[in-house]
Amino acid sequence: MSISAFRAELGDIPQEDNPRLVQQRSRDHYWYSPILKAKLDHVTAEVVVSPRSNDEVKTVLAAAFRHGVAITPRGAGTGNYGQAMPLSGGAMLNLMNMDKVLDIKPDRVRAQAGAVLEEMDHQTRAAVHGELRFHPSTYRMASIGGFIAGGSGGVGSVRWGGLRNLGSILGLKVITCEAEPRELDLEGEDILKVAHAYGTNGIIVEAEMPLAPAHDWIDMIVGFDDFMAAARFAEAVALQDGLLVKEVAPCAAPIPEAYFNRHKPYIKAGQSVVLIMVAPVSAAAMTLFTSHSRGEMLYRSDRASEEELKRLPPVYELAWNHTTLRALKVDPSITYLQTRYPTIDHVEKIVSLLGDELPMHIEMTRQDGIVTFAGLPLVRYTTEARLEEIIRIHEDNGCNVFNPHRYTLEEGGMKRTDQKQLDFKREADPRGILNPGKMVAWENPDFDFKAGKAWLFDGLNPVHAA
Amino acid sequence: MSISAFRAELGDIPQEDNPRLVQQRSRDHYWYSPILKAKLDHVTAEVVVSPRSNDEVKTVLAAAFRHGVAITPRGAGTGNYGQAMPLSGGAMLNLMNMDKVLDIKPDRVRAQAGAVLEEMDHQTRAAVHGELRFHPSTYRMASIGGFIAGGSGGVGSVRWGGLRNLGSILGLKVITCEAEPRELDLEGEDILKVAHAYGTNGIIVEAEMPLAPAHDWIDMIVGFDDFMAAARFAEAVALQDGLLVKEVAPCAAPIPEAYFNRHKPYIKAGQSVVLIMVAPVSAAAMTLFTSHSRGEMLYRSDRASEEELKRLPPVYELAWNHTTLRALKVDPSITYLQTRYPTIDHVEKIVSLLGDELPMHIEMTRQDGIVTFAGLPLVRYTTEARLEEIIRIHEDNGCNVFNPHRYTLEEGGMKRTDQKQLDFKREADPRGILNPGKMVAWENPDFDFKAGKAWLFDGLNPVHAA
Ligand SMILES: Cc1cc2nc3c(=O)[nH]c(=O)nc-3n(C[C@H](O)[C@H](O)[C@H](O)COP(=O)(O)OP(=O)(O)OC[C@H]3O[C@@H](n4cnc5c(N)ncnc54)[C@H](O)[C@@H]3O)c2cc1C
Ligand SMILES: Cc1cc2nc3c(=O)[nH]c(=O)nc-3n(C[C@H](O)[C@H](O)[C@H](O)COP(=O)(O)OP(=O)(O)OC[C@H]3O[C@@H](n4cnc5c(N)ncnc54)[C@H](O)[C@@H]3O)c2cc1C
Repeated sequence: MSISAFRAELGDIPQEDNPRLVQQRSRDHYWYSPILKAKLDHVTAEVVVSPRSNDEVKTVLAAAFRHGVAITPRGAGTGNYGQAMPLSGGAMLNLMNMDKVLDIKPDRVRAQAGAVLEEMDHQTRAAVHGELRFHPSTYRMASIGGFIAGGSGGVGSVRWGGLRNLGSILGLKVITCEAEPRELDLEGEDILKVAHAYGTNGIIVEAEMPLAPAHDWIDMIVGFDDFMAAARFAEAVALQDGLLVKEVAPCAAPIPEAYFNRHKPYIKAGQSVVLIMVAPVSAAAMTLFTSHSRGEMLYRSDRASEEELKRLPPVYELAWNHTTLRALKVDPSITYLQTRYPTIDHVEKIVSLLGDELPMHIEMTRQDGIVTFAGLPLVRYTTEARLEEIIRIHEDNGCNVFNPHRYTLEEGGMKRTDQKQLDFKREADPRGILNPGKMVAWENPDFDFKAGKAWLFDGLNPVHAA
Repeated sequence: MSISAFRAELGDIPQEDNPRLVQQRSRDHYWYSPILKAKLDHVTAEVVVSPRSNDEVKTVLAAAFRHGVAITPRGAGTGNYGQAMPLSGGAMLNLMNMDKVLDIKPDRVRAQAGAVLEEMDHQTRAAVHGELRFHPSTYRMASIGGFIAGGSGGVGSVRWGGLRNLGSILGLKVITCEAEPRELDLEGEDILKVAHAYGTNGIIVEAEMPLAPAHDWIDMIVGFDDFMAAARFAEAVALQDGLLVKEVAPCAAPIPEAYFNRHKPYIKAGQSVVLIMVAPVSAAAMTLFTSHSRGEMLYRSDRASEEELKRLPPVYELAWNHTTLRALKVDPSITYLQTRYPTIDHVEKIVSLLGDELPMHIEMTRQDGIVTFAGLPLVRYTTEARLEEIIRIHEDNGCNVFNPHRYTLEEGGMKRTDQKQLDFKREADPRGILNPGKMVAWENPDFDFKAGKAWLFDGLNPVHAA
């Protein structure tokens, strides 16, 4: 591959090659994982390219194809698994210059891939009182393209499920990496070829998403002396069909008092909490339900002073992976897992087995129509072996783990090849230039996921010389 | 009781005493049940009183209290269980003159009890693009007060659950039946005292309801050769979190071809169907899901001609108790049951046991957060004994039956006293004047619901002389 020949063909498309800046842009939140941190710390691209239009994206991809330069797409770089890290060096394709909201209808919005989620909601709220059905807790930074390519769900998933559900994404415009890059409009099931494929088989340049009605969501924090009481309350809230909520997340003590710095004054020692976002129309019913359930209303944003509202982050920035982030800031030895507890009894079992080694954090979500405990427990990390043991303890007790300490699609997820994604990569990225090393099925079709070893990408090299 | 003394105190409040008209207004859809038909056919009030304001309601109730005249409130009279029938004669209190929408906010609407549901939606759609979360299939006739006092849920319950859920009703204004009638504003759990109490413990004069976003719902009818395939598809649709649907109802052959007169040309012989209402934003995903599930798209309103749209009733008027109504019109020997099948296997079991004696009709609903099969199967009625047997077959196979052949609150529902409703009746209707005979706990606190006999109200008399 020849980076310089590649770069020479890009005309006035903005490029950045200051090594420090390039390295910054070559990273995501991989460092949440001590394991990924060790493996990926040295990874960096050689240049960041920032196209401003679909045509410029085509120019970049055609040049990359010709010269065999690895291309790693990047939105805001808030992914947690090193998804956006350029394992083979080459060029970062920064999409954040393509950030326009293109079209707003009462029930849907179309935007460029680099549009930031919060900004999209800002515009759709003003135009049609609509907002995205759900968003990651990185709402204020993350791009719609990065969310679709690398995320799964988030705030709102308790009502709407996640990205992989039919109907959650209405359409994508994707550019292929070929001698003559094509623009493809994907709809219906074709969307699944590219969604959550880490950008390995096409560059998303536009996305059309359904809108839900916007509400002036009220943040509530409800306290319980006992975590299982909090978890039971959270489940009951999520099962209340008449209560319009956007977020329900129980967090075990000592998470709230130890890591929610700004909210500390509201939380008693030893208290577990449930983080809630509720629509004004359901606020009275929620208050009633809370007091019936003997929950203590520690905070509600609709009763907060101007000054409190300014000082305190929104509740969703205590939730999802922000819980982990806040813990990491206080205690860098902490990491986390992604789990799924089929029932409250499974939650109780794991809590009783692992105690404070695994401070429990759950996101109530709907999965295939069923209210589910999606776990994002913190882990007081000691060794990789112990982490594997904790995963095994989960699996032995009938709980699923989606390993966030892996940078490949397969190992973090379903532990098998997604044939649709692989087939589409053959078509859309025949030279295997897009985000190399992230799709095991492409690099090493015979890899045995059951053998229990992490797959290591051969091309995981130090920076190439140009 | 002295009807004439009572009437003399009403001033210019409209009264009607033409016996034929009064009898018409003394009836609801009790005749869906051959059992209720036999028991209640002779029931009639002596006068219909139609107040136009809260003050006039108070005047009526104070006079009734003084003179011991039974008062039976009535909305549109579309109830199915004789709820609105004046078992002790007396006066019908017609609320349909109090039909104003009082206040519309982006997320809620407040209306007088006699407001017709369709008209409420009409106004809220225009004002804030909102609509009621769910409505009975008698949408075009039923009143909000009658729905709250006598209904349970309907079109939209697949997403939002039913009236009894916390948060489904925001507030009620109720007038008590005392020497000096009081106006009470009920909120929170107090609402449950009066909701679904058949007007036995207070007259609802205003209601505040939450709004959901309005959509231009698309009607779809999907055909399957096999009913269980239709039922499985219906469940799968209801479980798809990303598909925004308002109605999902599988109906077994021969219901569609035999009873859906106007839709007959669309339906093949022997076909079972699933009735669907889907939001435009989910239409493409629904079409995809349908073809994947090998369903045949028989009809969709967004592809229908002007002429078809004029000729065909909306899909929701094939569903809920409209299914029964359409069957009854063709075959007067038909009646129905209200059931609940915990799982699809229960559905299959009952279908295999009862076959065409019980043409199956299911409404997919959410109940306490769980997608459930709410059955409204037709019954080819022979004898009361056989009907009881069919109920027993359900119960023996772990399926609940809510008996629609009973006119009391308890026997149709939970088979036990609702203590809150009873306590509130003591307070709000100390003389027991409101809708006598409908609350067993009031009339006969010691009645044994388990003995298997229907309770018969003593006061179920022919018309009193004035
Ligand atoms: C504190 C914190 C909280 C988080 N909470 C959540 C959460 O609640 N839910 C959730 O799902 N995730 C969560 N994440 C992960 C991540 O923030 C989200 O998935 C986010 O949407 C990613 O968007 P991004 O623009 O930062 O994407 P990036 O990190 O830049 O990219 C993500 C992946 O998509 C690829 N990609 C980016 N843009 C494109 C494109 N246009 N075309 C093709 N491929 C592309 C990248 O190569 C990478 O593989 C969280 C992360 C952090 C650090
Ligand atoms: C074809 C058909 C389909 C139906 N589908 C559904 C359905 O999908 N879901 C459903 O829940 N029901 C259904 N029903 C039953 C009924 O139509 C609804 O419950 C409807 O909402 C009743 O409204 P109404 O105005 O006709 O009430 P009415 O029948 O007039 O009254 C219902 C009950 O409430 C009392 N009442 C009426 N107004 C007041 C008031 N202001 N204050 C106190 N008490 C009052 C009456 O005394 C009576 O006991 C159906 C009935 C038919 C005939």
